[in-house]
Amino acid sequence: MSGPVVAALGGGHGLAASLAALRFVTDEISAIVTVADNGGSSGRLRDEFGVLPPGDLRMALAALCEETEWGHTWRDVLQHRFAGDGPLGGHALGNLLIVALWELHDDPVAGLELVGRLLNARGRVLPMAAVPLDIEADVVDPQRPGEIELVRGQAQVAKARGDVREVRLVPADPPAYPESVAAIRAADWVLLGPGSWFTSVMPHLLVPDIAEALAVTRARRLLVLNLEMVTTETAGFTATDYLQSFAECAPGTRLDAVLADPSVVDDEAALVEACRDLGAELHVHRVARVGQPGQHDRLRLAAALQDVLGSERRP
Amino acid sequence: MSGPVVAALGGGHGLAASLAALRFVTDEISAIVTVADNGGSSGRLRDEFGVLPPGDLRMALAALCEETEWGHTWRDVLQHRFAGDGPLGGHALGNLLIVALWELHDDPVAGLELVGRLLNARGRVLPMAAVPLDIEADVVDPQRPGEIELVRGQAQVAKARGDVREVRLVPADPPAYPESVAAIRAADWVLLGPGSWFTSVMPHLLVPDIAEALAVTRARRLLVLNLEMVTTETAGFTATDYLQSFAECAPGTRLDAVLADPSVVDDEAALVEACRDLGAELHVHRVARVGQPGQHDRLRLAAALQDVLGSERRP
Repeated sequence: MSGPVVAALGGGHGLAASLAALRFVTDEISAIVTVADNGGSSGRLRDEFGVLPPGDLRMALAALCEETEWGHTWRDVLQHRFAGDGPLGGHALGNLLIVALWELHDDPVAGLELVGRLLNARGRVLPMAAVPLDIEADVVDPQRPGEIELVRGQAQVAKARGDVREVRLVPADPPAYPESVAAIRAADWVLLGPGSWFTSVMPHLLVPDIAEALAVTRARRLLVLNLEMVTTETAGFTATDYLQSFAECAPGTRLDAVLADPSVVDDEAALVEACRDLGAELHVHRVARVGQPGQHDRLRLAAALQDVLGSERRP
Repeated sequence: MSGPVVAALGGGHGLAASLAALRFVTDEISAIVTVADNGGSSGRLRDEFGVLPPGDLRMALAALCEETEWGHTWRDVLQHRFAGDGPLGGHALGNLLIVALWELHDDPVAGLELVGRLLNARGRVLPMAAVPLDIEADVVDPQRPGEIELVRGQAQVAKARGDVREVRLVPADPPAYPESVAAIRAADWVLLGPGSWFTSVMPHLLVPDIAEALAVTRARRLLVLNLEMVTTETAGFTATDYLQSFAECAPGTRLDAVLADPSVVDDEAALVEACRDLGAELHVHRVARVGQPGQHDRLRLAAALQDVLGSERRP
């Protein structure tokens, strides 16, 4: 297998889901991962070592472990969290492995490359930005529409109740690694999502180098819509609202394709129209897991991605 | 390569040195490792999780990593210690990997087996006992020969000044894993040492199941003498004193061979005689590293072990 060259942008469980599916479709995967986590094990490691938060990078690596018993064991070990509430309690082993390689290699990109080789992972995992980030957002409680609350921290924004009006990165305008920019420019396809919209998917568009690469790449751009429309941070969103939000967050950036599960298509005509406004064709495929409709089924998503990524470029 | 079936007993740097050499001679290696470390990363992990101290097990695994760039990278990563004095500072990554597998698998032997497979390590690594141990010793200051000082803790005994009179395990008579006993019984050769004499090598003889297996195995027994005669815990020892000490610690246990570097043979006739008293033939080979005479050179030691392990059983 080689397959199309894909850059997958996102973070957390959403990115892990797209990577777990993509690996059936192509070997040429670069995951470009949010580095704004401030909670749990990642938050503690930022505090102790001043490093990029490794959690989302670890989840991406785990999703790219090889499809063998050996690879699955490594995947489980990377994701394992130590028990208890002592000094190690709650730390994911994979986070510690990444930090160890960062201590052995000054360059985080080289360190991640080596982690990938040690695990025999498919594809590569790159940070979205070269510095640890924080996310802050203006949130408005619909009960008090005139008051804007400033919420700071990825973990806090993800849980904030109210409408997210604007998301910003701290520091603003962070640098990106050339490898991440190059991966987007060299891709046949760029995937955005699924994932926590304001805290995992949209932050990429706030990194100037990434946003510019996304604007100028010859790659086609696919947005994979979420299955759960109404997470806390996107309360009240319809599928069409996501596209509207995308247009606001990334003015002028075109999409070529939007992939949606039938369960999230309420008004198909409106959704097709919203896609068309962004330049995109709507692809509706059943990608939800049976019995767990909020999660992507990796084989169904793989089949859908194979169709979309194999489709002809429109004239 | 297959080679003779070898059980190597010891701990710390000494055992790692014999394993790094043995792997050139045979694939059939079981390392049976002291689990009495109470200092540093291992001591903290004992305190936090109540587990066997992983440090000596980690060093043995690192020595058995495969002879490729991939294996050498894993070796370095296992041995890497986190910087600083925060919650993770000083912990060796390999110790954390072992503890993670122990959390995923209740049985420590199965957990170590899996670590070995994840690292593609040659041979296997087994704990000397099934419970975390402490070492205590009666130490006598030659200036005050009538006073016996009780020193507790492997780290403390290793650094104690004075003559070590008796070493005990706490708890006394700990159980051993059947796999460790079986490995000694099934071996063609059992290696003892090199290593810290009272805190890494002799403790095995205080575990009843291990001592019994060592007494009854049909394997031949080889003692590899230390290069540095006069570590703190064996201050004033000559090569002959080691053999004397062995006879006292393991009354009735015979040896078949003793391997010594020429640099530690001061009175060869006396040493040959002391070997003969234990049933052993003396093999003198240059095994020290050029420029670092206190350390075993792994290729020289491999060549010497190949000679000794390939020698005919005496009638």
